Amino acid sequence: MQYSSGTRRRLLLVAVSELVVTNMGYELQYMDLRARGEPVRWLLKVLKLPYTEQRIDVFTQWPLRKNDFHFKVTPVLVVDGEQLHQTTVICRYLGKKHQLASLDLWTATRQEEIMEAFHDISYYVGSALVARALGNEELAKSNAEKVKERLPVVLQNIEVRVSEEGWILSPEKTWVDVAVAAYLDIYRDILGTTLLEDYPRTKALFEAVTGLPPIAAWLDVRPPLHKFEDPEGLF
Amino acid sequence: MQYSSGTRRRLLLVAVSELVVTNMGYELQYMDLRARGEPVRWLLKVLKLPYTEQRIDVFTQWPLRKNDFHFKVTPVLVVDGEQLHQTTVICRYLGKKHQLASLDLWTATRQEEIMEAFHDISYYVGSALVARALGNEELAKSNAEKVKERLPVVLQNIEVRVSEEGWILSPEKTWVDVAVAAYLDIYRDILGTTLLEDYPRTKALFEAVTGLPPIAAWLDVRPPLHKFEDPEGLF
Repeated sequence: MQYSSGTRRRLLLVAVSELVVTNMGYELQYMDLRARGEPVRWLLKVLKLPYTEQRIDVFTQWPLRKNDFHFKVTPVLVVDGEQLHQTTVICRYLGKKHQLASLDLWTATRQEEIMEAFHDISYYVGSALVARALGNEELAKSNAEKVKERLPVVLQNIEVRVSEEGWILSPEKTWVDVAVAAYLDIYRDILGTTLLEDYPRTKALFEAVTGLPPIAAWLDVRPPLHKFEDPEGLF
Repeated sequence: MQYSSGTRRRLLLVAVSELVVTNMGYELQYMDLRARGEPVRWLLKVLKLPYTEQRIDVFTQWPLRKNDFHFKVTPVLVVDGEQLHQTTVICRYLGKKHQLASLDLWTATRQEEIMEAFHDISYYVGSALVARALGNEELAKSNAEKVKERLPVVLQNIEVRVSEEGWILSPEKTWVDVAVAAYLDIYRDILGTTLLEDYPRTKALFEAVTGLPPIAAWLDVRPPLHKFEDPEGLF
């Protein structure tokens, strides 16, 4: 089969552009915090997806960068050149796209209920940290109290949903287990490493995820807590 | 074909229990507010799903009822006897279960990004209302400012996603359009009915949903705003 030189040129362009898209991978754009970015990082690592990261200093760079984002918030995962916002939405997308999701609607819904409950709590964490940074100690404390009140409720709900095999409502690991473990890691930092003692199944789930080689390796090399999110004295 | 009397009894029991499940429908359990319950109500109505509702007075009944809920929050949709929490999770479940959802993963993800952005803003609304109820006028005002800052950003993102046919990233109406319209209705109450003047496509979407017979009928009969969520003087 013979192609004209024009057709050959177009085919070459298509081939090159597909190569670029394939190699582009994902880019995570987030502040230099764990917080709502860490679940996305853990998931990208467990899925062994190549990605780059832009870390934006929360104090010096964020005010200048905020308007670069369509929703003026981060984390953002850049997917084929498009900004995708919202931790829960990003994690669910990655899990479904890369076959780490339960397919049954009711099962997936019950797993996502847990994720959304963590998202709720992360508001109070964020509000506590911002209030402290702004010198409003009273507001910081009242938000910290909300975290301490809400978290055990969510832990209890996780505990009864962990399957015999050790995952949330699933015989196999899903994106929800990975993202939940990343949140649990944050709350162990905040509230102490004994946090999961009364929740043995949840603790085993946390240890199973942190024992996965890509996560174990990340825990060894990741940046220390930014002083903005250092829980010292707040909780 | 002949059944033994034991078998007949078992078959009768199965038939009766299926009838009960089929007729059980959904029950929405929420405070006597619009807020995070209204998107669920609108969706149940557009889908023409039979449901009952328990309305819990936010001041007098909620403190006594809180512990009845597994996550100690509402809205809850009772599905076949099980509590399902979280507005976004409930709405997505109903949309998928009853075929009012986009099937393509990326499209559905981009629609859900809008929903999650509204969920974010509803935090600031809730915090403003609670702060006012507790007499903390300064905190109420700072949360109200957050609402006014964030909402136009979300509206701009909706505006560029409305399709030629008038729905968010879809040639046909999805659950996201219905839930978004319910949120827009709340923000028109809060920030004034001229809210959508600069967003003609979003305004047309809002009018298309509020013009649907089940929603038009609901707008005629629904309870007035509870004084807790009356925006008067707050925004």
